[in-house]
Amino acid sequence: MPVIRVEMFERTQEQKRDLARELTEAFIRTCGGNKDAIKILITEVDKNNWASGGVITADKKD
Amino acid sequence: MPVIRVEMFERTQEQKRDLARELTEAFIRTCGGNKDAIKILITEVDKNNWASGGVITADKKD
Amino acid sequence: MPVIRVEMFERTQEQKRDLARELTEAFIRTCGGNKDAIKILITEVDKNNWASGGVITADKKD
Amino acid sequence: MPVIRVEMFERTQEQKRDLARELTEAFIRTCGGNKDAIKILITEVDKNNWASGGVITADKKD
Amino acid sequence: MPVIRVEMFERTQEQKRDLARELTEAFIRTCGGNKDAIKILITEVDKNNWASGGVITADKKD
Amino acid sequence: MPVIRVEMFERTQEQKRDLARELTEAFIRTCGGNKDAIKILITEVDKNNWASGGVITADKKD
Repeated sequence: MPVIRVEMFERTQEQKRDLARELTEAFIRTCGGNKDAIKILITEVDKNNWASGGVITADKKD
Repeated sequence: MPVIRVEMFERTQEQKRDLARELTEAFIRTCGGNKDAIKILITEVDKNNWASGGVITADKKD
Repeated sequence: MPVIRVEMFERTQEQKRDLARELTEAFIRTCGGNKDAIKILITEVDKNNWASGGVITADKKD
Repeated sequence: MPVIRVEMFERTQEQKRDLARELTEAFIRTCGGNKDAIKILITEVDKNNWASGGVITADKKD
Repeated sequence: MPVIRVEMFERTQEQKRDLARELTEAFIRTCGGNKDAIKILITEVDKNNWASGGVITADKKD
Repeated sequence: MPVIRVEMFERTQEQKRDLARELTEAFIRTCGGNKDAIKILITEVDKNNWASGGVITADKKD
Protein backbone atom coordinates (compact mmCIF):
# COMPACT_ATOMS: atom_id res chain seq x y z
CA MET A 1 0.00 0.00 0.00
CA PRO A 2 -0.58 2.31 -1.64
CA VAL A 3 -1.15 1.04 -5.14
CA ILE A 4 -1.31 3.67 -7.89
CA ARG A 5 -2.66 2.55 -11.26
CA VAL A 6 -2.33 4.68 -14.34
CA GLU A 7 -4.34 4.00 -17.49
CA MET A 8 -3.07 6.12 -20.37
CA PHE A 9 -2.27 6.04 -24.07
CA GLU A 10 1.15 4.73 -25.11
CA ARG A 11 4.22 6.59 -23.84
CA THR A 12 7.98 6.07 -24.19
CA GLN A 13 9.88 4.02 -21.63
CA GLU A 14 11.65 7.22 -20.57
CA GLN A 15 8.32 8.90 -19.85
CA LYS A 16 7.10 5.91 -17.85
CA ARG A 17 10.33 5.91 -15.86
CA ASP A 18 9.91 9.61 -15.02
CA LEU A 19 6.23 9.17 -14.28
CA ALA A 20 6.84 6.34 -11.79
CA ARG A 21 9.47 8.40 -9.97
CA GLU A 22 7.42 11.59 -9.83
CA LEU A 23 4.13 9.97 -8.80
CA THR A 24 5.97 8.22 -5.98
CA GLU A 25 7.52 11.48 -4.79
CA ALA A 26 4.17 13.29 -5.05
CA PHE A 27 2.56 10.62 -2.89
CA ILE A 28 5.20 10.86 -0.17
CA ARG A 29 5.15 14.69 -0.13
CA THR A 30 1.38 14.80 0.38
CA CYS A 31 0.44 11.60 2.20
CA GLY A 32 3.68 10.40 3.77
CA GLY A 33 4.59 6.74 4.00
CA ASN A 34 7.45 4.48 3.09
CA LYS A 35 8.81 4.89 -0.44
CA ASP A 36 9.32 1.16 -1.02
CA ALA A 37 5.71 0.44 -0.14
CA ILE A 38 4.44 2.51 -3.06
CA LYS A 39 3.53 0.32 -6.01
CA ILE A 40 2.68 1.66 -9.45
CA LEU A 41 1.02 -0.24 -12.26
CA ILE A 42 0.91 1.33 -15.71
CA THR A 43 -1.57 0.15 -18.33
CA GLU A 44 -1.17 1.52 -21.82
CA VAL A 45 -4.53 1.61 -23.56
CA ASP A 46 -5.02 1.23 -27.32
CA LYS A 47 -7.01 4.09 -28.91
CA ASN A 48 -9.34 1.43 -30.29
CA ASN A 49 -10.33 0.50 -26.74
CA TRP A 50 -11.12 3.88 -25.20
CA ALA A 51 -14.23 5.92 -25.94
CA SER A 52 -15.67 9.21 -24.76
CA GLY A 53 -19.00 10.68 -25.78
CA GLY A 54 -19.88 7.28 -27.22
CA VAL A 55 -17.13 7.39 -29.87
CA ILE A 56 -13.98 5.26 -29.93
CA THR A 57 -10.91 7.54 -29.79
CA ALA A 58 -9.30 6.00 -32.89
CA ASP A 59 -12.42 6.98 -34.89
CA LYS A 60 -12.33 10.65 -33.87
CA LYS A 61 -11.16 13.31 -36.32
CA ASP A 62 -9.49 16.34 -34.89
CA MET B 1 -17.34 10.40 -14.59
CA PRO B 2 -18.81 7.98 -15.12
CA VAL B 3 -16.20 5.45 -16.21
CA ILE B 4 -17.55 2.21 -17.69
CA ARG B 5 -15.10 -0.67 -18.04
CA VAL B 6 -15.88 -3.74 -20.07
CA GLU B 7 -13.84 -6.93 -19.79
CA MET B 8 -14.80 -9.37 -22.53
CA PHE B 9 -13.38 -11.85 -25.00
CA GLU B 10 -12.16 -10.49 -28.33
CA ARG B 11 -14.64 -8.69 -30.57
CA THR B 12 -14.41 -6.94 -33.94
CA GLN B 13 -13.71 -3.22 -34.11
CA GLU B 14 -17.23 -2.74 -35.48
CA GLN B 15 -18.71 -4.46 -32.43
CA LYS B 16 -16.62 -2.33 -30.07
CA ARG B 17 -17.73 0.81 -31.90
CA ASP B 18 -21.39 -0.16 -31.53
CA LEU B 19 -20.90 -1.23 -27.93
CA ALA B 20 -19.33 2.11 -26.94
CA ARG B 21 -22.18 4.04 -28.54
CA GLU B 22 -24.96 1.91 -27.05
CA LEU B 23 -23.53 1.73 -23.52
CA THR B 24 -23.19 5.51 -23.55
CA GLU B 25 -26.81 5.94 -24.67
CA ALA B 26 -28.02 3.41 -22.08
CA PHE B 27 -26.25 5.33 -19.35
CA ILE B 28 -27.78 8.67 -20.35
CA ARG B 29 -31.29 7.21 -20.68
CA THR B 30 -31.21 5.71 -17.19
CA CYS B 31 -28.88 7.90 -15.14
CA GLY B 32 -28.73 11.18 -17.06
CA GLY B 33 -25.55 13.21 -17.33
CA ASN B 34 -23.43 14.78 -20.02
CA LYS B 35 -22.59 12.51 -22.96
CA ASP B 36 -18.99 13.76 -23.28
CA ALA B 37 -18.29 12.95 -19.63
CA ILE B 38 -18.94 9.25 -20.18
CA LYS B 39 -15.69 7.34 -20.60
CA ILE B 40 -15.52 3.71 -21.68
CA LEU B 41 -12.52 1.43 -21.42
CA ILE B 42 -12.63 -1.94 -23.18
CA THR B 43 -10.27 -4.74 -22.18
CA GLU B 44 -10.22 -7.81 -24.38
CA VAL B 45 -9.29 -10.85 -22.32
CA ASP B 46 -7.44 -13.88 -23.67
CA LYS B 47 -9.23 -17.19 -23.04
CA ASN B 48 -6.01 -18.40 -21.42
CA ASN B 49 -6.43 -15.75 -18.73
CA TRP B 50 -10.04 -16.23 -17.66
CA ALA B 51 -11.31 -19.12 -15.54
CA SER B 52 -14.62 -20.16 -14.08
CA GLY B 53 -15.24 -23.13 -11.84
CA GLY B 54 -11.48 -23.40 -11.41
CA VAL B 55 -10.84 -24.17 -15.10
CA ILE B 56 -9.18 -21.86 -17.64
CA THR B 57 -11.66 -21.12 -20.47
CA ALA B 58 -9.21 -22.17 -23.20
CA ASP B 59 -9.03 -25.63 -21.61
CA LYS B 60 -12.79 -26.20 -21.59
CA LYS B 61 -14.40 -28.53 -24.10
CA ASP B 62 -17.88 -27.70 -25.24
CA MET C 1 -17.77 -12.94 -18.97
CA PRO C 2 -18.26 -10.19 -19.78
CA VAL C 3 -17.88 -8.11 -16.64
CA ILE C 4 -19.07 -4.50 -16.88
CA ARG C 5 -17.98 -2.14 -14.11
CA VAL C 6 -19.52 1.28 -13.68
CA GLU C 7 -17.94 3.94 -11.49
CA MET C 8 -20.29 6.87 -11.02
CA PHE C 9 -21.60 9.32 -8.46
CA GLU C 10 -24.50 8.20 -6.27
CA ARG C 11 -27.77 7.26 -7.97
CA THR C 12 -31.13 5.95 -6.73
CA GLN C 13 -31.77 2.22 -6.53
CA GLU C 14 -34.33 2.64 -9.31
CA GLN C 15 -31.70 4.19 -11.57
CA LYS C 16 -29.23 1.40 -10.81
CA ARG C 17 -31.90 -1.20 -11.58
CA ASP C 18 -32.64 0.41 -14.95
CA LEU C 19 -28.94 0.86 -15.69
CA ALA C 20 -28.17 -2.82 -15.06
CA ARG C 21 -30.98 -3.92 -17.36
CA GLU C 22 -30.16 -1.51 -20.17
CA LEU C 23 -26.39 -2.08 -20.14
CA THR C 24 -27.04 -5.81 -20.34
CA GLU C 25 -29.39 -5.37 -23.29
CA ALA C 26 -26.95 -3.01 -25.02
CA PHE C 27 -24.21 -5.61 -24.68
CA ILE C 28 -26.29 -8.41 -26.17
CA ARG C 29 -27.53 -6.25 -29.08
CA THR C 30 -23.99 -5.29 -30.09
CA CYS C 31 -21.74 -8.15 -29.01
CA GLY C 32 -24.09 -11.09 -28.60
CA GLY C 33 -23.65 -13.67 -25.85
CA ASN C 34 -25.69 -15.24 -23.12
CA LYS C 35 -27.66 -12.82 -20.92
CA ASP C 36 -26.95 -14.69 -17.68
CA ALA C 37 -23.21 -14.53 -18.28
CA ILE C 38 -23.21 -10.72 -18.18
CA LYS C 39 -22.10 -9.46 -14.79
CA ILE C 40 -22.33 -5.81 -13.74
CA LEU C 41 -20.60 -4.22 -10.77
CA ILE C 42 -21.61 -0.69 -9.77
CA THR C 43 -19.33 1.43 -7.61
CA GLU C 44 -20.74 4.70 -6.32
CA VAL C 45 -17.93 7.20 -5.82
CA ASP C 46 -17.96 9.97 -3.21
CA LYS C 47 -17.35 13.47 -4.67
CA ASN C 48 -14.52 13.78 -2.15
CA ASN C 49 -12.71 10.92 -3.89
CA TRP C 50 -12.87 11.94 -7.53
CA ALA C 51 -10.80 14.72 -9.11
CA SER C 52 -10.40 16.18 -12.56
CA GLY C 53 -7.96 18.91 -13.57
CA GLY C 54 -6.21 18.38 -10.22
CA VAL C 55 -9.24 19.48 -8.16
CA ILE C 56 -11.45 17.26 -6.01
CA THR C 57 -15.05 17.39 -7.33
CA ALA C 58 -16.52 18.31 -3.94
CA ASP C 59 -14.31 21.41 -3.89
CA LYS C 60 -15.47 22.70 -7.27
CA LYS C 61 -17.86 25.62 -7.43
CA ASP C 62 -20.21 25.95 -10.35
CA MET D 1 -7.57 9.80 -20.29
CA PRO D 2 -5.49 9.32 -18.33
CA VAL D 3 -7.22 7.82 -15.32
CA ILE D 4 -5.13 7.55 -12.15
CA ARG D 5 -6.48 5.35 -9.37
CA VAL D 6 -5.04 5.40 -5.89
CA GLU D 7 -5.79 2.69 -3.35
CA MET D 8 -4.52 3.67 0.08
CA PHE D 9 -5.42 3.64 3.76
CA GLU D 10 -7.56 6.50 5.08
CA ARG D 11 -6.21 10.05 4.76
CA THR D 12 -7.56 13.50 5.65
CA GLN D 13 -9.50 15.49 3.07
CA GLU D 14 -6.62 17.98 3.03
CA GLN D 15 -4.18 15.21 2.12
CA LYS D 16 -6.45 13.94 -0.64
CA ARG D 17 -6.79 17.47 -2.02
CA ASP D 18 -3.01 17.89 -2.12
CA LEU D 19 -2.52 14.42 -3.56
CA ALA D 20 -4.95 15.04 -6.43
CA ARG D 21 -3.21 18.31 -7.32
CA GLU D 22 0.32 16.93 -7.14
CA LEU D 23 -0.37 13.69 -9.02
CA THR D 24 -1.96 15.74 -11.80
CA GLU D 25 1.06 18.06 -11.97
CA ALA D 26 3.45 15.09 -11.92
CA PHE D 27 1.61 13.53 -14.84
CA ILE D 28 1.73 16.69 -16.96
CA ARG D 29 5.43 17.29 -16.21
CA THR D 30 6.43 13.80 -17.32
CA CYS D 31 3.85 12.71 -19.89
CA GLY D 32 2.29 15.95 -21.10
CA GLY D 33 -1.39 16.25 -21.94
CA ASN D 34 -4.32 18.44 -21.04
CA LYS D 35 -4.83 19.07 -17.32
CA ASP D 36 -8.63 18.78 -17.47
CA ALA D 37 -8.40 15.36 -19.08
CA ILE D 38 -6.63 13.89 -16.05
CA LYS D 39 -9.06 12.01 -13.84
CA ILE D 40 -8.17 10.70 -10.38
CA LEU D 41 -10.13 8.19 -8.36
CA ILE D 42 -9.16 7.65 -4.73
CA THR D 43 -10.24 4.51 -2.88
CA GLU D 44 -9.60 4.40 0.86
CA VAL D 45 -9.12 0.81 1.96
CA ASP D 46 -10.00 -0.51 5.41
CA LYS D 47 -7.11 -2.25 7.19
CA ASN D 48 -9.41 -5.24 7.58
CA ASN D 49 -9.48 -5.62 3.80
CA TRP D 50 -5.81 -5.47 2.89
CA ALA D 51 -3.30 -8.26 3.50
CA SER D 52 0.36 -8.82 2.78
CA GLY D 53 2.31 -11.99 3.49
CA GLY D 54 -1.02 -13.74 4.03
CA VAL D 55 -1.95 -11.62 7.07
CA ILE D 56 -4.68 -8.97 7.24
CA THR D 57 -3.09 -5.58 8.09
CA ALA D 58 -5.44 -4.95 11.03
CA ASP D 59 -4.17 -8.19 12.63
CA LYS D 60 -0.50 -7.25 12.45
CA LYS D 61 1.40 -6.17 15.53
CA ASP D 62 4.21 -3.73 15.04
CA MET E 1 3.64 -8.12 -7.06
CA PRO E 2 1.50 -10.03 -7.30
CA VAL E 3 -1.68 -8.21 -6.33
CA ILE E 4 -4.76 -10.36 -5.81
CA ARG E 5 -8.11 -8.59 -5.64
CA VAL E 6 -11.25 -10.30 -4.47
CA GLU E 7 -14.70 -8.85 -5.06
CA MET E 8 -17.31 -10.76 -3.11
CA PHE E 9 -20.43 -10.34 -0.98
CA GLU E 10 -19.95 -9.60 2.72
CA ARG E 11 -18.08 -12.15 4.82
CA THR E 12 -17.02 -12.35 8.47
CA GLN E 13 -13.62 -11.07 9.54
CA GLU E 14 -12.66 -14.66 10.34
CA GLN E 15 -13.46 -15.74 6.79
CA LYS E 16 -11.46 -12.86 5.33
CA ARG E 17 -8.50 -13.77 7.54
CA ASP E 18 -8.61 -17.39 6.36
CA LEU E 19 -9.12 -16.34 2.76
CA ALA E 20 -6.07 -14.04 2.79
CA ARG E 21 -3.88 -16.79 4.23
CA GLU E 22 -5.08 -19.51 1.87
CA LEU E 23 -4.96 -17.44 -1.31
CA THR E 24 -1.39 -16.46 -0.44
CA GLU E 25 -0.40 -20.09 0.10
CA ALA E 26 -2.15 -21.17 -3.12
CA PHE E 27 -0.19 -18.55 -5.04
CA ILE E 28 3.17 -19.65 -3.67
CA ARG E 29 2.43 -23.35 -4.25
CA THR E 30 1.58 -22.80 -7.90
CA CYS E 31 3.55 -19.75 -9.02
CA GLY E 32 6.33 -19.43 -6.47
CA GLY E 33 7.59 -16.09 -5.24
CA ASN E 34 8.18 -14.33 -1.95
CA LYS E 35 5.33 -14.51 0.55
CA ASP E 36 5.70 -10.92 1.74
CA ALA E 37 5.40 -9.63 -1.82
CA ILE E 38 1.88 -11.01 -2.18
CA LYS E 39 -0.72 -8.31 -1.62
CA ILE E 40 -4.44 -9.00 -1.30
CA LEU E 41 -7.22 -6.45 -1.52
CA ILE E 42 -10.73 -7.51 -0.55
CA THR E 43 -13.76 -5.53 -1.69
CA GLU E 44 -17.11 -6.46 -0.20
CA VAL E 45 -19.88 -5.66 -2.67
CA ASP E 46 -23.41 -4.69 -1.67
CA LYS E 47 -26.12 -6.87 -3.29
CA ASN E 48 -27.67 -3.66 -4.56
CA ASN E 49 -24.56 -3.03 -6.65
CA TRP E 50 -24.10 -6.35 -8.40
CA ALA E 51 -26.24 -7.64 -11.26
CA SER E 52 -26.29 -10.72 -13.45
CA GLY E 53 -28.64 -11.36 -16.34
CA GLY E 54 -29.62 -7.68 -16.16
CA VAL E 55 -31.12 -7.99 -12.67
CA ILE E 56 -29.69 -6.51 -9.45
CA THR E 57 -28.93 -9.36 -7.00
CA ALA E 58 -30.93 -7.77 -4.17
CA ASP E 59 -34.03 -7.86 -6.41
CA LYS E 60 -33.78 -11.56 -7.20
CA LYS E 61 -36.16 -14.05 -5.62
CA ASP E 62 -34.90 -17.53 -5.11
CA MET F 1 -19.51 -13.47 -7.77
CA PRO F 2 -16.92 -13.65 -6.52
CA VAL F 3 -14.43 -12.27 -9.03
CA ILE F 4 -10.76 -12.84 -8.23
CA ARG F 5 -8.25 -10.81 -10.23
CA VAL F 6 -4.56 -11.60 -10.20
CA GLU F 7 -1.96 -9.15 -11.49
CA MET F 8 1.44 -10.82 -11.74
CA PHE F 9 4.52 -11.11 -13.91
CA GLU F 10 4.44 -13.63 -16.75
CA ARG F 11 3.93 -17.30 -15.88
CA THR F 12 3.59 -20.50 -17.91
CA GLN F 13 0.17 -21.73 -18.99
CA GLU F 14 0.64 -24.71 -16.68
CA GLN F 15 1.18 -22.37 -13.71
CA LYS F 16 -1.90 -20.33 -14.60
CA ARG F 17 -3.95 -23.51 -14.88
CA ASP F 18 -2.83 -24.65 -11.42
CA LEU F 19 -3.30 -21.18 -9.97
CA ALA F 20 -6.91 -20.92 -11.20
CA ARG F 21 -7.76 -24.31 -9.73
CA GLU F 22 -6.10 -23.68 -6.36
CA LEU F 23 -7.44 -20.15 -5.87
CA THR F 24 -10.93 -21.47 -6.57
CA GLU F 25 -10.52 -24.28 -4.03
CA ALA F 26 -9.07 -21.86 -1.45
CA PHE F 27 -12.08 -19.60 -1.85
CA ILE F 28 -14.59 -22.41 -1.38
CA ARG F 29 -12.75 -23.82 1.66
CA THR F 30 -12.74 -20.47 3.47
CA CYS F 31 -15.79 -18.59 2.20
CA GLY F 32 -18.06 -21.27 0.78
CA GLY F 33 -20.16 -20.73 -2.32
CA ASN F 34 -20.76 -22.38 -5.65
CA LYS F 35 -17.65 -23.39 -7.57
CA ASP F 36 -19.04 -22.38 -10.97
CA ALA F 37 -19.77 -18.87 -9.71
CA ILE F 38 -16.10 -18.18 -9.01
CA LYS F 39 -14.52 -16.20 -11.82
CA ILE F 40 -10.79 -15.56 -12.10
CA LEU F 41 -9.12 -13.00 -14.34
CA ILE F 42 -5.35 -13.12 -14.73
CA THR F 43 -3.41 -10.12 -15.99
CA GLU F 44 0.25 -10.63 -16.77
CA VAL F 45 2.15 -7.38 -16.25
CA ASP F 46 5.26 -6.39 -18.18
CA LYS F 47 8.25 -5.50 -15.96
CA ASN F 48 8.39 -2.19 -17.81
CA ASN F 49 4.97 -1.31 -16.43
CA TRP F 50 5.35 -2.04 -12.73
CA ALA F 51 7.30 0.10 -10.28
CA SER F 52 8.05 0.02 -6.59
CA GLY F 53 9.98 2.63 -4.64
CA GLY F 54 9.67 4.91 -7.66
CA VAL F 55 11.72 2.63 -9.92
CA ILE F 56 10.41 0.56 -12.85
CA THR F 57 11.09 -3.14 -12.17
CA ALA F 58 12.87 -3.70 -15.50
CA ASP F 59 15.39 -1.00 -14.51
CA LYS F 60 16.31 -2.60 -11.18
CA LYS F 61 19.60 -4.41 -10.78
CA ASP F 62 19.84 -7.16 -8.24
